[in-house]
Amino acid sequence: MVPSLQKLLAALRRLPGVGPKSAQRIGYHILRATREEAVELARAVVALKDRVGLCSVCGNVAERVEGASENTPLECPVCTDPRRDSSRLLIVEEPYNVEAFQKTGVYDGLYHVLGGLFDPLAGVGAVELGLDALARRVSGGSFREVILATSPTTAGEATASYLHELLKPFGVTLTRIAVGLAPGADVDYADEISLRLALEGRREYGSTGR
Amino acid sequence: MVPSLQKLLAALRRLPGVGPKSAQRIGYHILRATREEAVELARAVVALKDRVGLCSVCGNVAERVEGASENTPLECPVCTDPRRDSSRLLIVEEPYNVEAFQKTGVYDGLYHVLGGLFDPLAGVGAVELGLDALARRVSGGSFREVILATSPTTAGEATASYLHELLKPFGVTLTRIAVGLAPGADVDYADEISLRLALEGRREYGSTGR
Repeated sequence: MVPSLQKLLAALRRLPGVGPKSAQRIGYHILRATREEAVELARAVVALKDRVGLCSVCGNVAERVEGASENTPLECPVCTDPRRDSSRLLIVEEPYNVEAFQKTGVYDGLYHVLGGLFDPLAGVGAVELGLDALARRVSGGSFREVILATSPTTAGEATASYLHELLKPFGVTLTRIAVGLAPGADVDYADEISLRLALEGRREYGSTGR
Repeated sequence: MVPSLQKLLAALRRLPGVGPKSAQRIGYHILRATREEAVELARAVVALKDRVGLCSVCGNVAERVEGASENTPLECPVCTDPRRDSSRLLIVEEPYNVEAFQKTGVYDGLYHVLGGLFDPLAGVGAVELGLDALARRVSGGSFREVILATSPTTAGEATASYLHELLKPFGVTLTRIAVGLAPGADVDYADEISLRLALEGRREYGSTGR
């Protein structure tokens, strides 16, 4: 294989979810694409690194305003939107979880992005997740409700439980997103853990507003 | 979502096999990667377009020699290797098929890359596949054997059949790669077409040298 193609395939294979076959498909696609298309992709990759970082308030992705210095702290579109309800805070693992909750259209409060979950084996704990900054934000903020929206996995539950202990002293209402059967799921095919959680999480009929 | 991220995800989604979820995973990966890694990927994409093209002899991918003018016809590593057996020609659909046959280690002849298969609905025929150049190459060449190695699909078989008619007059031995059960396949689970082809393609035991 010619060196330039080999080099690109090696760079592509370092991307998540791109194996040798996908790298090959993408490489040959770029070979066939116009130079403009290739340059656009290359520019977009570098522009992302140069212009996008994490919001200094919530940890969501944020873009540098055209012409702003590199030392100006970034602020994300949610934090700078004055129409958001500043009495609610929703805590998520990653910036793309913010996108997902935004798309639901039913939440208009603020966010806090942890950037991960507790992972003792990988050395990710309270310090790595910046939980002191979160505690400061909640203690000094005007939040009435803090919603723990980490995934209902072992790591997500452990993190939510720690956050509950951490934030309890600040006198805010701490809530957890609902866990149960997925919409459209068949009770007949659900495993017993899902069924148990769905049963334990039951509510009075009509109380969710659906 | 911030514009630079949106732009990159849009560029990534145009790549084959990259859906919205993979684009998101790759985008956030690049956001977390070092600037060097991002620049390396971006450079590799553009270098591929600038330095790699198709071999003027066989249609395989070929890289421009450092410093060579843009108008110099490219030649691929196989065509320029004097150790290759120039009495055999193996015809494949795409440049990555060359890689695959090279990896088998059992073929040391030359290649011809069609760049596709007959596809009447997409308007791909003899002209688009450059079959006049292939005919010239075979008529003027010193080939004893031409191996038709298109896929055993409808389009691949149609193309192979056309190539057979096209190249027959040149007095070369025309062969077709074997079709049958995949190695490791269970006869019990094979469909009837596979079984029929495996039966029709039977050879005297030991004749393949295995």
